[in-house]
Amino acid sequence: MAGEMAQQPDVLRRLLTEGAPAIRETARAIAARRPRFVLLTARGTSDHAALYAKYLLEIELGKPCGLTSMSTTTAYAATPDLTDVLVITVSQSGGSPDLLASTRAAREAGAITLAVTNNPSSPLAAASEFHIDVLAGPEQALPATKTYTAELLALYLLVQGLRDTDGTAAAALPELAERILQRRAEITTLAARYRFAERMVLTSRGYGYPTAKEAALKLMETSYIPALSYSGADLLHGPLAMVDNISPVIAIVTDGKGGQALQPVLDRLRDRGADLMVVGPKPQVDAASAGFALATEGVPENLQPILEIIPLQMLAHEITLARGQDPDAPRALAKVTETS
Amino acid sequence: MAGEMAQQPDVLRRLLTEGAPAIRETARAIAARRPRFVLLTARGTSDHAALYAKYLLEIELGKPCGLTSMSTTTAYAATPDLTDVLVITVSQSGGSPDLLASTRAAREAGAITLAVTNNPSSPLAAASEFHIDVLAGPEQALPATKTYTAELLALYLLVQGLRDTDGTAAAALPELAERILQRRAEITTLAARYRFAERMVLTSRGYGYPTAKEAALKLMETSYIPALSYSGADLLHGPLAMVDNISPVIAIVTDGKGGQALQPVLDRLRDRGADLMVVGPKPQVDAASAGFALATEGVPENLQPILEIIPLQMLAHEITLARGQDPDAPRALAKVTETS
Repeated sequence: MAGEMAQQPDVLRRLLTEGAPAIRETARAIAARRPRFVLLTARGTSDHAALYAKYLLEIELGKPCGLTSMSTTTAYAATPDLTDVLVITVSQSGGSPDLLASTRAAREAGAITLAVTNNPSSPLAAASEFHIDVLAGPEQALPATKTYTAELLALYLLVQGLRDTDGTAAAALPELAERILQRRAEITTLAARYRFAERMVLTSRGYGYPTAKEAALKLMETSYIPALSYSGADLLHGPLAMVDNISPVIAIVTDGKGGQALQPVLDRLRDRGADLMVVGPKPQVDAASAGFALATEGVPENLQPILEIIPLQMLAHEITLARGQDPDAPRALAKVTETS
Repeated sequence: MAGEMAQQPDVLRRLLTEGAPAIRETARAIAARRPRFVLLTARGTSDHAALYAKYLLEIELGKPCGLTSMSTTTAYAATPDLTDVLVITVSQSGGSPDLLASTRAAREAGAITLAVTNNPSSPLAAASEFHIDVLAGPEQALPATKTYTAELLALYLLVQGLRDTDGTAAAALPELAERILQRRAEITTLAARYRFAERMVLTSRGYGYPTAKEAALKLMETSYIPALSYSGADLLHGPLAMVDNISPVIAIVTDGKGGQALQPVLDRLRDRGADLMVVGPKPQVDAASAGFALATEGVPENLQPILEIIPLQMLAHEITLARGQDPDAPRALAKVTETS
């Protein structure tokens, strides 16, 4: 896991140079088909990448989107009319049988199908009309890290291509990711805070919300700490009752409109005496109990998720080591999940 | 909370008699507009009712659906093209500012707007082209119970109306709900199991999945136990690592295809020595560590969620009492959540 986390700057660089032209071509071909709606199909870590794409597609392209409830097809044999619908299936392995079945059914139902995977020779890539390779190289660790940030960047480049703009704003990411990875000592100190945590709550709004969900999953699958994630707005609808002065909260505060919309939630948490760690701009970190200040100069809010997850991957890794567990061998998990 | 839970049979009966004709009229008017895509907008408990509607709309009507990410409009001012899109906003109070802003923006963007609320004189009802009143009567308790089951039934009747079929399959629900409410002694025994639980995992698939999410929210907002909910398929993608022989799991096993699709997940949980409680058919309960057998003779799978949540509402209530807390006064919550 540590080795694959460390490869992220190189993976992002490769995608920006070798991967981008093909993604742009694919985007052009899809744009010519004029999809009206987008459905995103994924599970686990890739589902959080899909959620990131949903924000991009709705905000930047104005396309109404939905996340696929796969069992409607695989268990209930629903036959929706998917004319004018772009179905994007995101999967590291491209091998999960339920993703494959759902994508095949979508194609038969008239959808334009696009697979985003780390394996161009996967059954999912073959079953889809279009394919984007995230070029992350083989991922062996059970907790996905480099394929997640690669999926985010590939989906960002796809949406820029659909808008017919280029993705030059992403050029600074590899260097910034490298700088984050060099700050392991800070993460070790933060991890010590959570040595005995029995639960965690992660929250964000807007573009940061997929990061909250992905960080919660990383924490659970490595350290086994139950980590609940909510959009800041949903947190106020019930789960806030669960937060007290011994429940740590981690907030991802993007430098932009999502971070601004999160402020009232952060105020409520501080009022309740919550232990609040912030990943975000330095002034936000200074106003919290702890945090990891993110340098995002010149990085637009919609690209910040690619950086924000990295300290949280590192945190999950360090907490797991601090607890005497092995982040490379989470109990009970298999790399390709065989749900049908 | 106990009083409002007890009103559920009467609320369902009222909706089936007094409410159904108006819902049918509304459904006819909407069907005539031929929506191609449906977006569901809601938060908290109502978001789980919206998820139930998503399954119904996709499986029974073949309409691709999405759940709205409200911040795309309220924080990022996205301007999607919502021609041919039906936007259904579900809200007990009809008063949350973000739901109102999102629904107004959808209407301006060309959507057919429908509000499903418990308050016909709410701002949300006024802002929407169509309105369905769930007729649950005033709800005072902070944990929503009767408005949830009323929303489910109203959405069921709406979808039957859109399909131009009647909702007679629902006729048995009030009587069956009454019988569940009479089994409080069983629930008290089950609640004793969870007196010292530090976390819970809830899971299901298909039509039962919204029930898992809603039960988790009820448990959190009353007892403050961190309760994580996953579709059975997603549980295998990571969170399973967190489940061990001291982490109780509650599975909602519908009598139908969703319950069948959940079987491999239940087997994996049993293999891991998980303490498994089942809400579902008696043979499923017998094969688990504990459970609540649900009599659903003649009730189709897509109506079972209206019954399945009731023992789980009762369980949340009883666990909270067993822990010496007050289910009617969850800390930190307000009845109408003012997120903007």
